[in-house]
Amino acid sequence: MTLRIAEIFGPTIQGEGALIGEPTVFVRAGGCDYRCSWCDSLHAVDSQYRHSWTPMSTEDIWRQIRKLSKDQPLTVSLSGGNPAIQDFGPLIRMGKAAGYRFACETQGSIARQWFADLDTLVLSPKPPSSGERVDWDAFDACRTLGAQARQQVMKIVIFDEIDYHWAREVHAHHLDIPLYLQPGNPEVDPATPVDPQTLADRLGWLTELAMTDHWFAPRILPQLHVLIWGNKRGV
Amino acid sequence: MTLRIAEIFGPTIQGEGALIGEPTVFVRAGGCDYRCSWCDSLHAVDSQYRHSWTPMSTEDIWRQIRKLSKDQPLTVSLSGGNPAIQDFGPLIRMGKAAGYRFACETQGSIARQWFADLDTLVLSPKPPSSGERVDWDAFDACRTLGAQARQQVMKIVIFDEIDYHWAREVHAHHLDIPLYLQPGNPEVDPATPVDPQTLADRLGWLTELAMTDHWFAPRILPQLHVLIWGNKRGV
Repeated sequence: MTLRIAEIFGPTIQGEGALIGEPTVFVRAGGCDYRCSWCDSLHAVDSQYRHSWTPMSTEDIWRQIRKLSKDQPLTVSLSGGNPAIQDFGPLIRMGKAAGYRFACETQGSIARQWFADLDTLVLSPKPPSSGERVDWDAFDACRTLGAQARQQVMKIVIFDEIDYHWAREVHAHHLDIPLYLQPGNPEVDPATPVDPQTLADRLGWLTELAMTDHWFAPRILPQLHVLIWGNKRGV
Repeated sequence: MTLRIAEIFGPTIQGEGALIGEPTVFVRAGGCDYRCSWCDSLHAVDSQYRHSWTPMSTEDIWRQIRKLSKDQPLTVSLSGGNPAIQDFGPLIRMGKAAGYRFACETQGSIARQWFADLDTLVLSPKPPSSGERVDWDAFDACRTLGAQARQQVMKIVIFDEIDYHWAREVHAHHLDIPLYLQPGNPEVDPATPVDPQTLADRLGWLTELAMTDHWFAPRILPQLHVLIWGNKRGV
């Protein structure tokens, strides 16, 4: 079996969400069933980049993870694109046998049996500003499998007040899953430096919005990797 | 019973450590048995500020928490100074009965029975740059009580490579408790604006240090509140 891989990099810290700060090797799968207006990973999404995706066997990927981590078990994050398009089950089984932990970040549009084997499933339904529409039946199928993972969380990116109110609505229907909110980063060009003050301001904006509403359910976190490295790839 | 309280503020997000991003009301106790060289909360530590500490009953504090949170249960963080100097047991019992969660951040120099009732005990032994010395017997007594809390974690602030190597040593003796590292913030004057780029650079420095050593055990996190609000108090 061959998987299409946009990049494998790390170890570096996870910049966002439930595992923020956690040393991680990232496996970014090529290909996506969505095309969010503000996608920050187009090189793993847009099919015009498909010739840059390396066909790799599970063993190839596992070898690369071991090399980057110098055989020291850590967290491996499967991201994309949408990693659920492909079958990462054999990789997860191989890595777990060696003491590695696996997280997967997906929009929740495709349910996979291997979600059940994860340490962390991050479901990130895309808000209105993305231009995409959530298929809630597919999302619920992901949730059912994710319930067998060690932990399952939901992450929603917020660009504006419309997204924010949508997130409140989504949360009301999914009260039993921990929620993380993340201010959107409108600057996604890897060549453009990101102003840390702008990121700080957006975090402050979202925090004040939720606190003013006395909405205490979600954790609110920035993207640390953008703060440290801007939109540079491979860090 | 009367407690000396330097400030009660929030709700805002927890800026650091295991509960980073979590909506929180902060109760900052006045008084400390340490005097770290880089202390960022001198107004709650140095006895020259003691006249600014308000004597409050447990009921006074509880009333203020309920008012700030509009009676919506959330996490209450007991910090200081060293909150373990005083008896927060009755407050914790009162708040938990109403569905509130309690975290406490302390250096681990004074063990308290009420640690066992916490949702989160954060023990932050101070590294060499603080100018303080850890009493490891007292620290172990804290750990024993903290083992009864819902979760117990360790957080170490890192200012330089000496602190970093000290943290590795401490971790080696406490492998069974999750570790969080946090780059130190050398600028503690509330009147001086903090440069977000400097904070980002320090996070990058600490991340690269640990990754180069293939030390994947700790999570590495910045102080988000300093990023958003600088050293301003009460946010």
